Amino acid sequence: MAIHNIKKPYLLLVGDIDDPRSAKTAFGLRDWTPDACIGQFRFSENAVNLALPDMVPSQAVSAGAKTLVIGIAPAGGQLPNSWHGSIIEALRAGLDVAAGLHQRLSEIPEISTVAVSLGRQIHDVRHTSNKFPVGTGLRRPGRRLLTVGTDCALGKKYTALAISKAMLARGLNADFRATGQTGILISGRGVAVDAVVADFVAGAAEALSPANTAEHWDIIEGQGALFHPAYAGVTLGLIHGSQPDALVLCHDPTRTVMDRFEHMPIVPLDTAIAAYLSAARVTNPKPHFVGISLNTSSMSSSQAESILRETSRSLGLPCVDPIRTGVAAIVDELARLYH
Amino acid sequence: MAIHNIKKPYLLLVGDIDDPRSAKTAFGLRDWTPDACIGQFRFSENAVNLALPDMVPSQAVSAGAKTLVIGIAPAGGQLPNSWHGSIIEALRAGLDVAAGLHQRLSEIPEISTVAVSLGRQIHDVRHTSNKFPVGTGLRRPGRRLLTVGTDCALGKKYTALAISKAMLARGLNADFRATGQTGILISGRGVAVDAVVADFVAGAAEALSPANTAEHWDIIEGQGALFHPAYAGVTLGLIHGSQPDALVLCHDPTRTVMDRFEHMPIVPLDTAIAAYLSAARVTNPKPHFVGISLNTSSMSSSQAESILRETSRSLGLPCVDPIRTGVAAIVDELARLYH
Repeated sequence: MAIHNIKKPYLLLVGDIDDPRSAKTAFGLRDWTPDACIGQFRFSENAVNLALPDMVPSQAVSAGAKTLVIGIAPAGGQLPNSWHGSIIEALRAGLDVAAGLHQRLSEIPEISTVAVSLGRQIHDVRHTSNKFPVGTGLRRPGRRLLTVGTDCALGKKYTALAISKAMLARGLNADFRATGQTGILISGRGVAVDAVVADFVAGAAEALSPANTAEHWDIIEGQGALFHPAYAGVTLGLIHGSQPDALVLCHDPTRTVMDRFEHMPIVPLDTAIAAYLSAARVTNPKPHFVGISLNTSSMSSSQAESILRETSRSLGLPCVDPIRTGVAAIVDELARLYH
Repeated sequence: MAIHNIKKPYLLLVGDIDDPRSAKTAFGLRDWTPDACIGQFRFSENAVNLALPDMVPSQAVSAGAKTLVIGIAPAGGQLPNSWHGSIIEALRAGLDVAAGLHQRLSEIPEISTVAVSLGRQIHDVRHTSNKFPVGTGLRRPGRRLLTVGTDCALGKKYTALAISKAMLARGLNADFRATGQTGILISGRGVAVDAVVADFVAGAAEALSPANTAEHWDIIEGQGALFHPAYAGVTLGLIHGSQPDALVLCHDPTRTVMDRFEHMPIVPLDTAIAAYLSAARVTNPKPHFVGISLNTSSMSSSQAESILRETSRSLGLPCVDPIRTGVAAIVDELARLYH
């Protein structure tokens, strides 16, 4: 099975990265799964500081660490050759290694040779190594919520993480299901659906949120957008395989054209809702939207309040900004609809 | 670039296959591209007879052949080891090799070693080896027609081949664009879009039907169906990348549930038309349906006439069965709409 299963806790490799923007994944791991981050592995005092204890691999192993996570994006996307020794040191000390790089660690011979000989796992979470079965469209027990969007990069992962965290805090039975690299590292499990061979995307999504108990919720991280000229196929396969009961639409109200596709307009929210429901009905007879998640980070507090209120009124749905307001209103709506 | 480009003419490898159903691709090649099939390579008199001259590779090379095509499906999908010698014989004689097997010839060491050392090409047309760029959604010159369907396996390839053939016969400027293995072998060019990594399906479709002169038509073979629980993502990526001006809906009027997915109903034709137009509008402002292609092979002549007439009347579109009636009515509609 090609679903990654990464052992926690983690030692986070920072190396000599000194630009916090290049360490976004590491900061995300520290914030979203703090209990799983027991230390940082830095090559110098000038490197980014995650405010975690500094450790070398052998110290991390003594402290209980199971996996070295490369939570940074080196310039050019390639791991510097000078880092190979530190990764091999971690493998020798007893750690698995997980990375979200375009480059596959498992294809760097000096690293993969050591990993294979010691029986360590290498998780290249941006990739999948095996084929999945094709999707079946068969209904399976358990409930599923999928975050969808009017574009890429506007909060689908963050919204899903916030909803699953809020549900767990209320004592509900929920799992976050990761479909992209950062989410996989945060949850320790998942599959990068955009890296799956096209014929098997729906099947991969089915495998990611398998049959469960009737009241259990999978909170599935969405990808792409149905109206996106490059990635809509991934989105549709993920919808069909996830067979969501509930959907949350993520949107950035200041965005009028797609990120890095400026010739593509953002569709109106009601158009998006209708299209997503129509797509979801292929594998779920009764999908519902349970909320709208707006990214209002570039707005003033009063502007944000106003657009949240206005969007909620016009669409008749709870409307939140996960960072500004939290997602309680969406969890309330879930509880109201499914009890 | 990962678009296959196979040199014609072909020597068709039949081997010892004695069941015509296992040689469907070979018969298709003989029928659709007869000028490119200069001989058959059989191991025995009992093998399927394509009614082409029997030749061994060296004879075929003397007659001008460029590529040995494995146009059969061996039991189990694996090439028998006993055939390897004949393929190596073909490579040594000067032929490239093309195959539509699940198994990759390029991963059989004794075959790939010879191919590499002699500089011959191996085309595993069911696979793609390289990544494509992601789709852009940018409009490009030239016109495009895409066949779509209410299900898999109901005539999308046949319809596209018939339309491109009829257009060429009228002196129109058209190219068939293959998206599946048999189509690629027939046209000598194309990409198996369902084997592309999901993020790159739309980009692969863009590469397959590149910018062209204003009056040129690409007639693109469709894949899957928007309502299919396993393959809809492939279909949507192909639509977005193809940015079709014209669409033809393929349908089997006797089918009420999907092939091998009997829990999935076939949607009504008007529902399908609306959904396909909505999907196509993401990358083309004015897509039109120009016809319906029905597979009436299991009907009597009078039943077929009746359903063709009734479908045409109710949808207001030309309705053909490519085998029974030809596709002239669709080419007429194209000529009427785009002149």
